[in-house]
Amino acid sequence: MTDAQAQLIAKAEQKLGAKALITDPKEVEPWVTDWRGRVHGAAPAMLAPASTDEVVEIVRLAAEHRVPLVPQGGNTGMAAGATPPADGSALLLSMRRMNRIRSISADNRLAVAEAGVVLATLHEAAHEAGMRFPLTLGARGSCTIGGLTSTNAGGTQVLKFGTMRSLVAGVEAVLPDGSVHNGLSGLKKDNRGYSLDQLLIGAEGTLGVITAVALRLVPAVAARAVAWAGVKSPLQALELLRFLEERTNNIEGFELVPQDSLDLVLRHIPNTRAPLSGGHSWHVLVEATTAGAATDIAAEVEQLLACALQQGLIGDAVIAANEAQAEALWKIRDSISEAERAEGQTLAHDISVAVPDMPAFIVDAAAKVERAFPGVIASGFGHLGDGNIHFHVRAGNHAAPGWYEREGAEITRMVDDLVTAAGGSISAEHGIGQLKISELERLAPPGRIQALRAIKQALDPLGIMNPGKLVRI
Amino acid sequence: MTDAQAQLIAKAEQKLGAKALITDPKEVEPWVTDWRGRVHGAAPAMLAPASTDEVVEIVRLAAEHRVPLVPQGGNTGMAAGATPPADGSALLLSMRRMNRIRSISADNRLAVAEAGVVLATLHEAAHEAGMRFPLTLGARGSCTIGGLTSTNAGGTQVLKFGTMRSLVAGVEAVLPDGSVHNGLSGLKKDNRGYSLDQLLIGAEGTLGVITAVALRLVPAVAARAVAWAGVKSPLQALELLRFLEERTNNIEGFELVPQDSLDLVLRHIPNTRAPLSGGHSWHVLVEATTAGAATDIAAEVEQLLACALQQGLIGDAVIAANEAQAEALWKIRDSISEAERAEGQTLAHDISVAVPDMPAFIVDAAAKVERAFPGVIASGFGHLGDGNIHFHVRAGNHAAPGWYEREGAEITRMVDDLVTAAGGSISAEHGIGQLKISELERLAPPGRIQALRAIKQALDPLGIMNPGKLVRI
Repeated sequence: MTDAQAQLIAKAEQKLGAKALITDPKEVEPWVTDWRGRVHGAAPAMLAPASTDEVVEIVRLAAEHRVPLVPQGGNTGMAAGATPPADGSALLLSMRRMNRIRSISADNRLAVAEAGVVLATLHEAAHEAGMRFPLTLGARGSCTIGGLTSTNAGGTQVLKFGTMRSLVAGVEAVLPDGSVHNGLSGLKKDNRGYSLDQLLIGAEGTLGVITAVALRLVPAVAARAVAWAGVKSPLQALELLRFLEERTNNIEGFELVPQDSLDLVLRHIPNTRAPLSGGHSWHVLVEATTAGAATDIAAEVEQLLACALQQGLIGDAVIAANEAQAEALWKIRDSISEAERAEGQTLAHDISVAVPDMPAFIVDAAAKVERAFPGVIASGFGHLGDGNIHFHVRAGNHAAPGWYEREGAEITRMVDDLVTAAGGSISAEHGIGQLKISELERLAPPGRIQALRAIKQALDPLGIMNPGKLVRI
Repeated sequence: MTDAQAQLIAKAEQKLGAKALITDPKEVEPWVTDWRGRVHGAAPAMLAPASTDEVVEIVRLAAEHRVPLVPQGGNTGMAAGATPPADGSALLLSMRRMNRIRSISADNRLAVAEAGVVLATLHEAAHEAGMRFPLTLGARGSCTIGGLTSTNAGGTQVLKFGTMRSLVAGVEAVLPDGSVHNGLSGLKKDNRGYSLDQLLIGAEGTLGVITAVALRLVPAVAARAVAWAGVKSPLQALELLRFLEERTNNIEGFELVPQDSLDLVLRHIPNTRAPLSGGHSWHVLVEATTAGAATDIAAEVEQLLACALQQGLIGDAVIAANEAQAEALWKIRDSISEAERAEGQTLAHDISVAVPDMPAFIVDAAAKVERAFPGVIASGFGHLGDGNIHFHVRAGNHAAPGWYEREGAEITRMVDDLVTAAGGSISAEHGIGQLKISELERLAPPGRIQALRAIKQALDPLGIMNPGKLVRI
């Protein structure tokens, strides 16, 4: 521990009490490695404020002593954006004690949740208020509102409701100078200069610490229908989506699953079974919901899929007859990453291209990667309707210690080059963090990197807010 | 003209040709005064680029010669944000020659329009493609996409579709260093660092010149119903909105009109007549639309209003029987400002508070202003469902030369204080420009002003992009 860190910690203990300070290495240890277990950091202590005022105190101390802070929520990020540097130079700033839902209003369709509120907790609170917070993803039981906002998270319902950027009505944050930005007013229209709310969304804690977020709610789901269909190709899957969207506004989930991913799930995940009897090269999971009682959503989906079958758009389909069957279909989709890990080394790429370009991209990129690295297995699954695919490459017969670092890095560069050439993004919904920072610097236009650096330097001149993430000065 | 300006102009003529340069004072003159005719500026020349490359040339020359640029679209702004300074130190940068719609796709629900495309032109192009760009406002025949984006414009359909911030999928802009930010890829998910798109939306040309915008389209309107209802109070108007929104998703316009404003329109605007026969203290204009043929929208609105009448939520109502009648109702709403100008001196305040607080705010603030300045007439009209009211104060028997500058400034400070105390915004949809910059500096938290200045300084260190607007360094 440096002298500066020791001084900061002593003052923080004096001002905030022992509760706000965790120095026992055993208690700190679970939080210094990223969720995927790939990046190992170190931190001599973790600060755990319980209020915005306490965050202000901590940020002021960090500025005074020039000690960097690494804000962290549920530590479920995919780009190691909340993992401290390995040299122990930074302190962890855990937001999990700020876990109050400050208000929830069905009339205003707004909830104000502190940064440390777990997503599943917000889901429950919205449900109890007769409303719904529609964003959801696999880590819902651990990930926090602050982390979701700081990474502009997406998930499986983006098709209808957008990413966090669409669902955040305002942000409260402590800026690096210790001032509090309060964007929680719930104003629908506010044109008083540059949007600090929008700047903080997706900034990965590098411009300030998000302490609370005003979130848009939507009417509760009255009923949902979940279906599984077999298709010939990603292109046919997209045609099915267009077909459905032309006929109903109720589609909110549309996930692409290759047969290969389904096979892995069936092999490694207990209590799973193939939804369809025949063989299909590709599959889609369709979710439709309705907020009103007037629509028989299951009948609507059944009729649409019957029509799609008749037109040859799908090879077969099944509709969940009850919630347990619906959950079983979602379990297949949500278990793909876990099944891949059980199978062996897998390289993950969270990428996007324009929606109409995605079917060809998946097929072409997989073929190119498999040709360049014979023996690896490449495929894409996920949010086809958002143009966002998790393009994963399994080591196959290349599996070996150090594969990630050596050949994996080469494969990633190839994928990122292909994505960039297609006008896409090397980070669709996971952010840049530590893991993608070099690739961002390599591939982004120099003017963009220059602008990001200028903004970072302007708002955090001392470099105390999550340095080394997203943008390097 | 300064030497630096003369040098810039000579080089611009050489590089871009005579078409891109307007120096005849008679041709420049109409563009140096703001739309309301209140702020008079001066500019020795107007630059009129025809392409993004030409904007790059101009911005580079401006940086080289340290000559500020004032970007301008249709010159319909309400805060004099596109009016050059009176000392002639800046050059006008007219974007009107960049008026191409680069692409329009019903499949992707996207249009890419250059900055100088007039809103009404985009409306027509979207209509021809079987789609719709839903944002609209009174100045639609003159205002441009670049100006709408730079001011994060709102208008009358925000209730359902949001402001420009919700409808812009990406921005192309020339940054102050001459680099081009290209956000037109149409990616639905892209988490590669701070959102420059969002930073440029509402930046009023102070961080760069927006050259083109990717805009979200929605399905074309199959049918609309426009109705007019008389209510007792703004609170009852809001109750009516809640009543309607609980029963249908089709409401997209909900405008509040006080009897006083209606009287002014009937007095000063030819070919207008009162929609309802009886007297009502307040009125609302309701617009509902449907994109599908399945809904009989007129019948739906008629039934809902009949039910509201029965429950005592409204005093009376009429539904337009055809498009001509619908246009006649909208004409009343859209003519209020013009009628006020015909009546005499009027002070305009574009303000917002949280939606549930607005009914009480309108009534209280009007009473307070009329008590403090006996003889003036205060009232609010407009976008009740957005919490955004145009709170106008007519001089009444105070009318006199210089009233705006003297008593008007006092009244504005009082209104802005009341709005700020209510947690609202002194600029809901018009921006800050020149007219509100002192009030913003007076009322915003110092940390916010400091952050805005830091961002401006970081991205435009030479101060060439619309200096003196929105934020003063």
